[in-house]
Amino acid sequence: MAIREKVFNTIISCFKRHGAETIDTPVFELKETLTGKYGEDSKLIYDLKDQGGELLSLRYDLTVPFARYLAMNKITNIKRYHIAKVYRRDNPAMTRGRYREFYQCDFDIAGQYDAMIPDAECLKIVHEILSELELGDFRIKVNDRRILDGMFAVCGVPDDKFRTICSTVDKLDKMAWEDVKMEMVKEKGLSEEVADQIGEYVSMQGGMDLAERLLQDQKMLQSKQACAGLSDIKLLFSYLQLFQVTDKVVFDLSLARGLDYYTGIIYEGVLTQAGESVSASAQKVRTTEVQVMVASAQKNLLEERLRLITELWNAGIKAEVMHKKNPKLLSQLQHCEESGIPLVAILGEQELKDGVVKLRVVATREEVRLRESFIRESFRRRPCHIISDSHDTNRYCHLK
Amino acid sequence: MAIREKVFNTIISCFKRHGAETIDTPVFELKETLTGKYGEDSKLIYDLKDQGGELLSLRYDLTVPFARYLAMNKITNIKRYHIAKVYRRDNPAMTRGRYREFYQCDFDIAGQYDAMIPDAECLKIVHEILSELELGDFRIKVNDRRILDGMFAVCGVPDDKFRTICSTVDKLDKMAWEDVKMEMVKEKGLSEEVADQIGEYVSMQGGMDLAERLLQDQKMLQSKQACAGLSDIKLLFSYLQLFQVTDKVVFDLSLARGLDYYTGIIYEGVLTQAGESVSASAQKVRTTEVQVMVASAQKNLLEERLRLITELWNAGIKAEVMHKKNPKLLSQLQHCEESGIPLVAILGEQELKDGVVKLRVVATREEVRLRESFIRESFRRRPCHIISDSHDTNRYCHLK
Repeated sequence: MAIREKVFNTIISCFKRHGAETIDTPVFELKETLTGKYGEDSKLIYDLKDQGGELLSLRYDLTVPFARYLAMNKITNIKRYHIAKVYRRDNPAMTRGRYREFYQCDFDIAGQYDAMIPDAECLKIVHEILSELELGDFRIKVNDRRILDGMFAVCGVPDDKFRTICSTVDKLDKMAWEDVKMEMVKEKGLSEEVADQIGEYVSMQGGMDLAERLLQDQKMLQSKQACAGLSDIKLLFSYLQLFQVTDKVVFDLSLARGLDYYTGIIYEGVLTQAGESVSASAQKVRTTEVQVMVASAQKNLLEERLRLITELWNAGIKAEVMHKKNPKLLSQLQHCEESGIPLVAILGEQELKDGVVKLRVVATREEVRLRESFIRESFRRRPCHIISDSHDTNRYCHLK
Repeated sequence: MAIREKVFNTIISCFKRHGAETIDTPVFELKETLTGKYGEDSKLIYDLKDQGGELLSLRYDLTVPFARYLAMNKITNIKRYHIAKVYRRDNPAMTRGRYREFYQCDFDIAGQYDAMIPDAECLKIVHEILSELELGDFRIKVNDRRILDGMFAVCGVPDDKFRTICSTVDKLDKMAWEDVKMEMVKEKGLSEEVADQIGEYVSMQGGMDLAERLLQDQKMLQSKQACAGLSDIKLLFSYLQLFQVTDKVVFDLSLARGLDYYTGIIYEGVLTQAGESVSASAQKVRTTEVQVMVASAQKNLLEERLRLITELWNAGIKAEVMHKKNPKLLSQLQHCEESGIPLVAILGEQELKDGVVKLRVVATREEVRLRESFIRESFRRRPCHIISDSHDTNRYCHLK
């Protein structure tokens, strides 16, 4: 959860930097709202039992609920993000990270704008987030559904097979061309010749240059749709240059994406190499942010511990105390070591008599005796320097 | 959503200050996990349709999923918070804020500890959160299920009616005593005499003094259970004194709470007077945090706008640009006023020639001409002072 929180914070900061607000929609929608939006995937929708009242289903993505929200509230212009869970009645595959409940993270710009400017901003956002998360090197593949449809048309795919051939092409990132071709020919009834023509196009990758070259392609020129898509890809790349993100963006004709509701530009980010943060997931992560533990060295000091921690909490300091009347000092120190609490404030009879608290750095076992009020004030100002301040030396305790 | 975010941040900071980590559980549980945990309320559980696979239900609260999580993962010690939505197939009453999907905000301390220390910390947390949210004056009512059960016993309620009489007592905050008594006598079959004895106890309110007085009460003394509960309330108040929160905590014998799984201390916060933040909900709230809008005064400056905003985004500044090739200056300024963006960076041909940007405070219409690099650097350091710095005067633009 600590890692998830960090990742979400990175993503949300980026969305806010781009001026997005956030909205929230319920986890269920009317069943009829979801019907007919997801093509072949509709069978994976979770329905609620009919216990009286409306027929409901769990949301399958955040896009259809967003569209429903805009329509119901008559909103025509909004830039919003939504990070929430969606539900798919799939066969879970934990090892591949496929669950039946999982997060989606949507950023949408709704409204009437000039072509490709909002799309370019979306790609800039993907670029910023993937860079900041430091997951490793990445590429962002882009394509346009109109280019795919136009290409299918000029290759001789019948109109009513566009969608189904599209989902077959989408498998190219997981399957070899031979198997994709087989599915097109054997299962979906294309001729080998048509499949081979598709095969030639979907192997193409490039940037603005590829869009320009295809705009000269005699076969592509037969499709108005394809040309419109290619011109937009060209325009998109001109904006991506201004946004300084063309280093990672690839125009890839094999990118198809599965869902029925895509009609224009589509894109997908892929990691080309796992970075350090991914492989370091076995590292120990602190699950709390506690700065100091209030402990006692002798018995019968519960009251004094509770009094001190009240002072610390009231001063906004993240602090813990053991919920035992007479915990052993050793077990209090062990708790600090196990959960990564860097400092421990130890109360003993001598300290109480002298009106001070012993503050100990768990890692180095350094100790200083401080007035209680001094601890409170120093923590509030600069928790990192509390030890060195009191000694006036250069020894620091490093808190994260 | 901006208000919700602020409220959640206040609550989460408090939980973190008290050393809690957070966990997440799925929105659905096995139906059998929820069966038999909620007493009369079980009929409000949402079930999923049987589409093959396990029988599932939507979570009804966060407590049963937490207990399931602890048992499955064999965790015996944890201090955790969980803020998430729960689902109840109830009749929604929007005007009273009752929905079928709503947030619960749980903080739990699991483990074996000395009596009342964790409970006192929970009350301290409730006190801190309700104070910091500034919703108005409040009280935290506390009671103990064992005191209720003991009281029912000494008043002559049959054992098998404890739970149902308990849910009737729980209605005392919404119904007059006469109606509650009627329900006990007419619907639940108590004698008038028994009901009147209960009525006497449940009108009592106080602090540690009331617990001490009841520990002398001849009738209460007949119940070991009640005495155990009363001693714990006394102990609890001694810790609450150390935590400095007794000003708001009331021992209230009418507090019953509905759910079957409570066995010891129970409590509930109530607002005794609505504060300003509640009544101020009609105030306009900014939904984004954008600091500056990049605008142009003439046509054909899209490229320049995109170039400047890229610089700002890359420097971490929250900035927006209109997604039109040639937006009118007026409509760009209007957008700033409507959405509360405090500054606008205006590009024009003259400015481009001079290598500067005109920066305008939306509210006062003050303008200064600044070098682009200066804007970037100043924003990064102190967005508030960008205008006054450049003029070396005392005029400030106040950003939140």
